[in-house]
Amino acid sequence: MNRTMSVVKLEECRERIRSQLDNVVDFWLKYSHDTVHGGFFTCIGRDGSVYDELKYVWLQGRQVWMYSRLYRTMERFHKPEILEAAKAGGAFLRKFARVSRTSGQWKCAFCLTRDGKAVKVQRTIFSECFYIMAMDELSRVTGDQEMQLEAEQMMEQLIHWVRVDSSGLGRPQLPGDVPANSMAVPMMLLCLVQQLTGGRGPEVVQKYKELEQWCVQQILHHIQRDGTAILENVSVDGKELPGCSGRLQNPGHALEAGWFLLQYGAERTDEKIQSTAINKFIELPYQCGWDKTHGGLFYFLDVDGHCPTQLEWNMKLWWPHCEALIAFLMAYSQTRKPELLERFLQVYEYTFSHFPDANGGEWFGYLTQEGKVALDFKGGPFKGFFHVPRCLYMCERILDDLLANEDRTL
Amino acid sequence: MNRTMSVVKLEECRERIRSQLDNVVDFWLKYSHDTVHGGFFTCIGRDGSVYDELKYVWLQGRQVWMYSRLYRTMERFHKPEILEAAKAGGAFLRKFARVSRTSGQWKCAFCLTRDGKAVKVQRTIFSECFYIMAMDELSRVTGDQEMQLEAEQMMEQLIHWVRVDSSGLGRPQLPGDVPANSMAVPMMLLCLVQQLTGGRGPEVVQKYKELEQWCVQQILHHIQRDGTAILENVSVDGKELPGCSGRLQNPGHALEAGWFLLQYGAERTDEKIQSTAINKFIELPYQCGWDKTHGGLFYFLDVDGHCPTQLEWNMKLWWPHCEALIAFLMAYSQTRKPELLERFLQVYEYTFSHFPDANGGEWFGYLTQEGKVALDFKGGPFKGFFHVPRCLYMCERILDDLLANEDRTL
Repeated sequence: MNRTMSVVKLEECRERIRSQLDNVVDFWLKYSHDTVHGGFFTCIGRDGSVYDELKYVWLQGRQVWMYSRLYRTMERFHKPEILEAAKAGGAFLRKFARVSRTSGQWKCAFCLTRDGKAVKVQRTIFSECFYIMAMDELSRVTGDQEMQLEAEQMMEQLIHWVRVDSSGLGRPQLPGDVPANSMAVPMMLLCLVQQLTGGRGPEVVQKYKELEQWCVQQILHHIQRDGTAILENVSVDGKELPGCSGRLQNPGHALEAGWFLLQYGAERTDEKIQSTAINKFIELPYQCGWDKTHGGLFYFLDVDGHCPTQLEWNMKLWWPHCEALIAFLMAYSQTRKPELLERFLQVYEYTFSHFPDANGGEWFGYLTQEGKVALDFKGGPFKGFFHVPRCLYMCERILDDLLANEDRTL
Repeated sequence: MNRTMSVVKLEECRERIRSQLDNVVDFWLKYSHDTVHGGFFTCIGRDGSVYDELKYVWLQGRQVWMYSRLYRTMERFHKPEILEAAKAGGAFLRKFARVSRTSGQWKCAFCLTRDGKAVKVQRTIFSECFYIMAMDELSRVTGDQEMQLEAEQMMEQLIHWVRVDSSGLGRPQLPGDVPANSMAVPMMLLCLVQQLTGGRGPEVVQKYKELEQWCVQQILHHIQRDGTAILENVSVDGKELPGCSGRLQNPGHALEAGWFLLQYGAERTDEKIQSTAINKFIELPYQCGWDKTHGGLFYFLDVDGHCPTQLEWNMKLWWPHCEALIAFLMAYSQTRKPELLERFLQVYEYTFSHFPDANGGEWFGYLTQEGKVALDFKGGPFKGFFHVPRCLYMCERILDDLLANEDRTL
């Protein structure tokens, strides 16, 4: 593809991405707000109707974060109704998400009733992660110092659970349960460090510097098999674990880690991290994860080619495709290597021809291996206002930068 | 189908079922025994190779039960190698499955390392259920009084958790987590009562009589919507629950409950229970659960036609088909209604043309909606030596009885 063709194609992509982002924001503004009890409905059917009133805390936090980020950084979303929605969601979270624990530590619920009563608490850190993201981003919009402090306090607790003592999470210590480094943990912590430090002064950056480097090292430990594979779970000292858990590959997760590392590399012009991010965390998961027969990215794979035990392993989920779009476009924008643009366009074609619902708006989330819609809801326990709009937002911004620079060079 | 045709067809079925049972028993005898650490490997690939050494406790217990039952009740399996396998599995379970808890109660692990160290404990009753089944059936073979007593003691604890105080299971009490009657619980307890009382004297039957009646009542509470649907989760007082959980249908579970109720009804010639079992627990799940387009039983459905949130909802799993075969054949044998035989044959044709692996032996467990093998292993975290051989064993015995009676009447 020559330069002029690329520019035309990227302008087409930007138009579509921009209009999809508008469509998706409208969908959630219209259907997800609970004006009676506050917070957001997250179980939203194909046509926008609420099919379950439970409120999933990951998704509450993510929606507050996304509204706040759009309000703060994109002019066309700097609208009172988006600010109000973010604030209402933040108030609901603050009031109900934290469940008191005997140890004096705050644990967030995983799921709440419509009126905010805790239904389930997970013995992991992720509800807290999205609580922190929400509070930090919202406080940047409102200037609420107390809320920002609360985000930092929750972050301290998270660091304590991950690096010092995990007993506050409530998991029993079992002799056969060997501690592991699961990709999600350092990835989420790195994402939170980037959230908490972004645009802030050197003292805040300094405060989280050692943690950030630790996260990067922990992520790099997932490069295994002499650099030929990214594995989802490794031992604490960076070795391959036995069994299915040790052989598990999650291409979407690796791609997401890839663009987190690209951001980290770009901030400090670290070319070594940049090339590791691209060659290992972006290229390898694409190579192993892309379905050569039907297109799209598999959800789970086994590095030795065994069948994964996850029943959904061969399904095509929306979010790995969102992460792949961001990863390849960011990699292209940093390197201008044409093969990365080609990959982006390949994922783009699959994604935009399979996931968006032209009739009901928003995207379907779950396709069969062959690309047929298998679950037709727009929001569910794990799909909310997050991966789709974050992808569209990130890609629109990267395309704005790319095309602005192209204009100058043409 | 006239009587002669039925007899010919049923004889064909019996031949196939008999040879499949031999095949499946051979498969597990050959590939699943851990002669170093004891117990059974449960993660067994398409060709019989072990792809993960973890030992899942549900499956250890079920395999001990199945070997013992076959040894005790079927002449061709009354072989030393089957007895030895059952005893070795029982010894492994007794030594390693129970995890000591501070409350002084015994909780069984969900998963063990190859050498028996606990990896994970579930906050449910099912590991304990299969422990009890294993110990009771094995003690009937070996005459081990102490083991039988242990099964009864574990049963007392289970009853305490279910009917008096569930805090020993380790779930935190949360204000939004409304107690519910989940089909699996009374079903499993009824199955255990049938296990513990079967063939024993009146004092044992008397001991569990009230519990048995309670289980039956709890199961009957799952008949909802004016008798038109079986719902998987209902309130403690037998009402429909809100949301996805309340609308969930699990046809395989309902069919399994159906034949448990048929057994209960047959023991006391209770025609009312018999017709409820057939019209509600067997016919309704078939009506809603059978895929009119591709054949086979769906895994999960929503009674209002919403899309279930379980990613695997539209897959065809081996075990609901096993339960349906038992349920329809037992219902036919009790009533001789030709439409029940037709249903049996319909499920039989689908099952035997899709699940057995003619090359590697045993059955595949997980098909796509269209009937293609989606996961090709023979054993995994939830598939072991249980549903397939129990189905074949039950069906062979029912067919033996049916055909023996036919011979007399012809």
